[in-house]
Amino acid sequence: MKNTFGSNVTVTIFGESHGPAIGCVIDGLTPGLQVDEEFIRHMLSRRRPSSPVDTPRREPDNYSILSGVFNGKTTGTPICIMIPNENTRSGDYLFGPARPSHADYTAHIKYNGFEDYRGGGHFSGRITAALVAAGGIITPALNRLGIYIGTHIFSCGGVQDASLGDKEKEIEENIKLLNNKVFPVLSDEAGEKMTAAISEAAKAHDSLGGIVKTAITGLPAGVGEPWFDSLESLLSHALYSIGAVKGVEFGKGFEAVSMRGSEFNDAFKKDGDRVVTVTNNNGGINGGISNGMPVMFNVSVKPTPSVSRPQKTVNFLTGEEEELVIQGRHDPAIVRRICPVIDSITAIVIADALVTGFGPQVLVKGKALWNTDL
Amino acid sequence: MKNTFGSNVTVTIFGESHGPAIGCVIDGLTPGLQVDEEFIRHMLSRRRPSSPVDTPRREPDNYSILSGVFNGKTTGTPICIMIPNENTRSGDYLFGPARPSHADYTAHIKYNGFEDYRGGGHFSGRITAALVAAGGIITPALNRLGIYIGTHIFSCGGVQDASLGDKEKEIEENIKLLNNKVFPVLSDEAGEKMTAAISEAAKAHDSLGGIVKTAITGLPAGVGEPWFDSLESLLSHALYSIGAVKGVEFGKGFEAVSMRGSEFNDAFKKDGDRVVTVTNNNGGINGGISNGMPVMFNVSVKPTPSVSRPQKTVNFLTGEEEELVIQGRHDPAIVRRICPVIDSITAIVIADALVTGFGPQVLVKGKALWNTDL
Amino acid sequence: MKNTFGSNVTVTIFGESHGPAIGCVIDGLTPGLQVDEEFIRHMLSRRRPSSPVDTPRREPDNYSILSGVFNGKTTGTPICIMIPNENTRSGDYLFGPARPSHADYTAHIKYNGFEDYRGGGHFSGRITAALVAAGGIITPALNRLGIYIGTHIFSCGGVQDASLGDKEKEIEENIKLLNNKVFPVLSDEAGEKMTAAISEAAKAHDSLGGIVKTAITGLPAGVGEPWFDSLESLLSHALYSIGAVKGVEFGKGFEAVSMRGSEFNDAFKKDGDRVVTVTNNNGGINGGISNGMPVMFNVSVKPTPSVSRPQKTVNFLTGEEEELVIQGRHDPAIVRRICPVIDSITAIVIADALVTGFGPQVLVKGKALWNTDL
Amino acid sequence: MKNTFGSNVTVTIFGESHGPAIGCVIDGLTPGLQVDEEFIRHMLSRRRPSSPVDTPRREPDNYSILSGVFNGKTTGTPICIMIPNENTRSGDYLFGPARPSHADYTAHIKYNGFEDYRGGGHFSGRITAALVAAGGIITPALNRLGIYIGTHIFSCGGVQDASLGDKEKEIEENIKLLNNKVFPVLSDEAGEKMTAAISEAAKAHDSLGGIVKTAITGLPAGVGEPWFDSLESLLSHALYSIGAVKGVEFGKGFEAVSMRGSEFNDAFKKDGDRVVTVTNNNGGINGGISNGMPVMFNVSVKPTPSVSRPQKTVNFLTGEEEELVIQGRHDPAIVRRICPVIDSITAIVIADALVTGFGPQVLVKGKALWNTDL
Repeated sequence: MKNTFGSNVTVTIFGESHGPAIGCVIDGLTPGLQVDEEFIRHMLSRRRPSSPVDTPRREPDNYSILSGVFNGKTTGTPICIMIPNENTRSGDYLFGPARPSHADYTAHIKYNGFEDYRGGGHFSGRITAALVAAGGIITPALNRLGIYIGTHIFSCGGVQDASLGDKEKEIEENIKLLNNKVFPVLSDEAGEKMTAAISEAAKAHDSLGGIVKTAITGLPAGVGEPWFDSLESLLSHALYSIGAVKGVEFGKGFEAVSMRGSEFNDAFKKDGDRVVTVTNNNGGINGGISNGMPVMFNVSVKPTPSVSRPQKTVNFLTGEEEELVIQGRHDPAIVRRICPVIDSITAIVIADALVTGFGPQVLVKGKALWNTDL
Repeated sequence: MKNTFGSNVTVTIFGESHGPAIGCVIDGLTPGLQVDEEFIRHMLSRRRPSSPVDTPRREPDNYSILSGVFNGKTTGTPICIMIPNENTRSGDYLFGPARPSHADYTAHIKYNGFEDYRGGGHFSGRITAALVAAGGIITPALNRLGIYIGTHIFSCGGVQDASLGDKEKEIEENIKLLNNKVFPVLSDEAGEKMTAAISEAAKAHDSLGGIVKTAITGLPAGVGEPWFDSLESLLSHALYSIGAVKGVEFGKGFEAVSMRGSEFNDAFKKDGDRVVTVTNNNGGINGGISNGMPVMFNVSVKPTPSVSRPQKTVNFLTGEEEELVIQGRHDPAIVRRICPVIDSITAIVIADALVTGFGPQVLVKGKALWNTDL
Repeated sequence: MKNTFGSNVTVTIFGESHGPAIGCVIDGLTPGLQVDEEFIRHMLSRRRPSSPVDTPRREPDNYSILSGVFNGKTTGTPICIMIPNENTRSGDYLFGPARPSHADYTAHIKYNGFEDYRGGGHFSGRITAALVAAGGIITPALNRLGIYIGTHIFSCGGVQDASLGDKEKEIEENIKLLNNKVFPVLSDEAGEKMTAAISEAAKAHDSLGGIVKTAITGLPAGVGEPWFDSLESLLSHALYSIGAVKGVEFGKGFEAVSMRGSEFNDAFKKDGDRVVTVTNNNGGINGGISNGMPVMFNVSVKPTPSVSRPQKTVNFLTGEEEELVIQGRHDPAIVRRICPVIDSITAIVIADALVTGFGPQVLVKGKALWNTDL
Repeated sequence: MKNTFGSNVTVTIFGESHGPAIGCVIDGLTPGLQVDEEFIRHMLSRRRPSSPVDTPRREPDNYSILSGVFNGKTTGTPICIMIPNENTRSGDYLFGPARPSHADYTAHIKYNGFEDYRGGGHFSGRITAALVAAGGIITPALNRLGIYIGTHIFSCGGVQDASLGDKEKEIEENIKLLNNKVFPVLSDEAGEKMTAAISEAAKAHDSLGGIVKTAITGLPAGVGEPWFDSLESLLSHALYSIGAVKGVEFGKGFEAVSMRGSEFNDAFKKDGDRVVTVTNNNGGINGGISNGMPVMFNVSVKPTPSVSRPQKTVNFLTGEEEELVIQGRHDPAIVRRICPVIDSITAIVIADALVTGFGPQVLVKGKALWNTDL
């Protein structure tokens, strides 16, 4: 489905970096969800370049909701959100030399030279603003059901952040903190060191990547499908939409290679009436289906491809090798700005999986529909 | 779509571990593809338990092709492959105590107690035989187009295998070797050490996981879509169908955190008429679309959940905590048997992406349709 | 999706007329639905050739349920039903001369000559047995929710059947009668005349078509979607799967041309607590969504293409015109046998629309989920 | 998929009659298609109210293309077209009394009272402007391949139009005439009588329906799928998106009931190198797949529900019966304005079916990909 994601709650994205506007259409949301425009603006502000380690391109993100919201609530019909592009400098972009690690070359091959190449066109990170706006509509509905989603910069520039914690309540509190931070880390000290590392890389005309870690709390057991629509399948599918993502792991992920089954297995126990697990090495998912523990995953974000030092490349107009010095305005690291994007993508996936599993009214009725007593 | 994967080439799976049969329906394959039954049997034999480090359950996998093949060739209409279950010992399985790290608990919640619990039911690794049979039909068609797929056990029990190589030709040769090995490693010495580690774990009533590495060679540039159907999205979606998979990374994956943009970026250069990259840190994919370099990814396989030592759990019939000692026949590690499953899943994804990108005739016409000159 | 239908309850069909077996995979059904094998056999018997006006090919339809049913109930995972072909006489079929009004020519073009041409291959009406088996599983679940589906031969051979009635209760009673009749008409006298007309046509080496009328009672208001997944869109999509269907109309359908808005409009009124309409010219659907009145539609069934008199055609092997006399065993009219097929297709569509609208548990919980008080 | 249609070329619609804007997102179009803005405006003008027998609401349809078009050509990425609503008079609409034959009641039930009720909200015919804009982009690409689509008012107010003809060339010429007519009929005399009948009905505070007939010429054989994605299934699915449509028939449609197989069957013959049929009772489709003859279908359009005479209804706020006199601005018949909508829907379906059958490049390469020699 190319630019549409989801089974029952679907998001269709459109737009190019330097076109008139970007946006998305969200379909299948439960009618009657309160739309919190302040929260949408808050989400967009988290993604917007704002700190010295971000790109100087500043877009006001003056979005419009064109449909699907009436009297401040969702109607149940498609919501189109449009965000105009206002601050474009297309002259910075050349057609011909393929920027390494960008999509210029692959887009050129795929679209036979008809691609809008300016600023990466449809492949630009700019489009993620539309996903964040969608997250801005969906997230409050999940929160009202007691489901929280948060992401922190786990590792960047050789610096590691503090832990989100082991207990659901602690993780939830940390999520709430993170969602109000400009630089989403738990340890401000770690954050300062990361910022310094990014600034240093920028000065060296270079860029950094990082690992970001996401947690979902309050998700009931029973969400997801066996096999092809496992919760891991759905989440990784959506996360890998972002070109900068090069790794996704759940729970212990790649560390599992150094563990034995007896260590890795998450024993079940009772916690009052609930069934919980003693450890959470599976990241809250067994057999593709949530088990009621926090869902935990890590995402590897590659260093921003745009570095302002000379790079070797091929010019696809001349067919010749050449040296390229990238102009334009860029982030020396996107680990900060990617956090609300991942939160939003996660919210979309969870809303869709809940509706698929429990019906369209679940985003209003919550527990009444997912009753999962043994 | 739950148990159906794909956009234009689709695979629908069915079956339970201890039911009459498992199988799949493959739709959308180009008509006229030669079906090589010997190769299907070969693929199934690679997945079948056969070595001392595999489960003692031995299924002959006497599959039948019920439809969609006529005079030894695909007709273009749905191919149903059925594989009877012949060697089941359902008495080994109990309904009630949830096996840790298995899907017993989540299936019980999701299916309200109506799940077929015997041997993991629909969540059993047994179902992967159907995927391998599908791979057995699709893979030769890809090979005829010059596309090769192979997987080796990169790391298990603290032992690492030799490298697949850097050059496409070398990788392709290694793939061909791997596809004929019982224990798919490049270094036989590494293989022996891994086998010893697995045997040792089995004797300790324990199990091991590992990391497997997959390469796709010969894939043209231009395959995959931006955003939601990125090649990484499609591959990870399909790979995460397997319950044991806990991590998927492309190219340098999680190592990207320790690299700078200037190191990570894959510079373009000319190789005769072709555009290639000097390094392949992006794993052959830029912006979600193949760039003509080998596609490379790693999969983290968790240690087999079934270990024959006492484990703490909750019995969902009584609602009480109890100690469980798992009976039944199990693999102390599935890193060996998962390789042909990953190869097959990859073949399915690639066939689908090719047909989506170049039309249904591409599996016969190949290069004539994906002509991707600059 | 070619051979898969549905959004949340999906049916995937496979098979050829003269291959080893036909069948289907049903996914997404609520777990815990009682499977009534006697009813499945009853449904298959309604479709099976059995009267003098049917084809002499008699298939026992010894189906097997390969998966998805455990202890007599649906598990929630895919149900594969396989029906072996036992009575085939492939020698009757020739490769080359395209039978007029059949799919021989179009299949030959589409599948490049690789189609299984024997008995129409994948295009054969034989495949509808798989749809009827699916209907045999789904229909009792709908009945338990108070939803009934029935089809009668409204018109054939110049003879018209009696009316299904206007009142829901009356229609429901008539549906129950029809579902137990070998020749599904309300007036036995009309049935005898239709049978005579068909026999007469058969003797004249010719065939008849007809119009069949279907009613759905007990369907709550609020089922279906605006625009692309209107209930009419879903039903007509599924009905037009059958090659013999050439017309589908809802309510007054094509008669609307001779009515004015003031006549056609269905005024609303109260009937106790319920909102009903005075007339039902819209066939129970407004704006694509059920309004709580019986859903009524007519299907035009073309005369069976296989007539045993010489016909002019082109042989696609020689490329020459020739005269063809069709051999093989055929129905002089399929209006009788198509009724359970339409009932089953309708049951599939309704189950899918209910699950999409009210969640997967609706097939068990019914009214509790579709509460539609004003 | 609710508001998204298509497999490979998809159209997602959004908007409400009295919201800020309506529009659509078209995904999957071949890159490099020339976008003819004058033609889009022409298509929109054909649908726009303009004659005395149309609604007095006059929308300028000042659409914007927000994405997916660069240098006047499609890029291959999603095209968002937005059309602002400029001429709304929401005060005419009441929340409570369900307008008979409209979607007010069913929308109220489905969306739990959160629907945007003004002017029919998302159910308004206003949304079809977005489909016509999509048709305006797609149709010229089909025309360049030699495929033409046209619709005329076959019957309205007891008046029947002249025939489109039997020969493909004649039909194509008639299509070209129709596409430039304000009132799309072949006989101007018939058109005048129809207009008079509509005016007369309007004066009587009433409305008319009609039958419109569509032809597709130049479509190659081999388009469509067996069973669930038959060309009839796809077309009827899309056509039944329009709330006013109550019948769809192909070829002889419901007339088939009065024909015998020997009359109905379309004998094949040679026409130079081509295979054609002597008659076209199947409407150009055999077994769900185009046979190279003109595709012909009829659509029954019900009388406009909005009539300005008192009607009985139920008020869903009070729960009481009441008499309603509809205010607002309405068409006494939509047979004129529906023609470009049907043309556009048909163009969308055909583009999607071509791309599914022959690959994304088919909209540029045409015959080179659909080579269908015997």
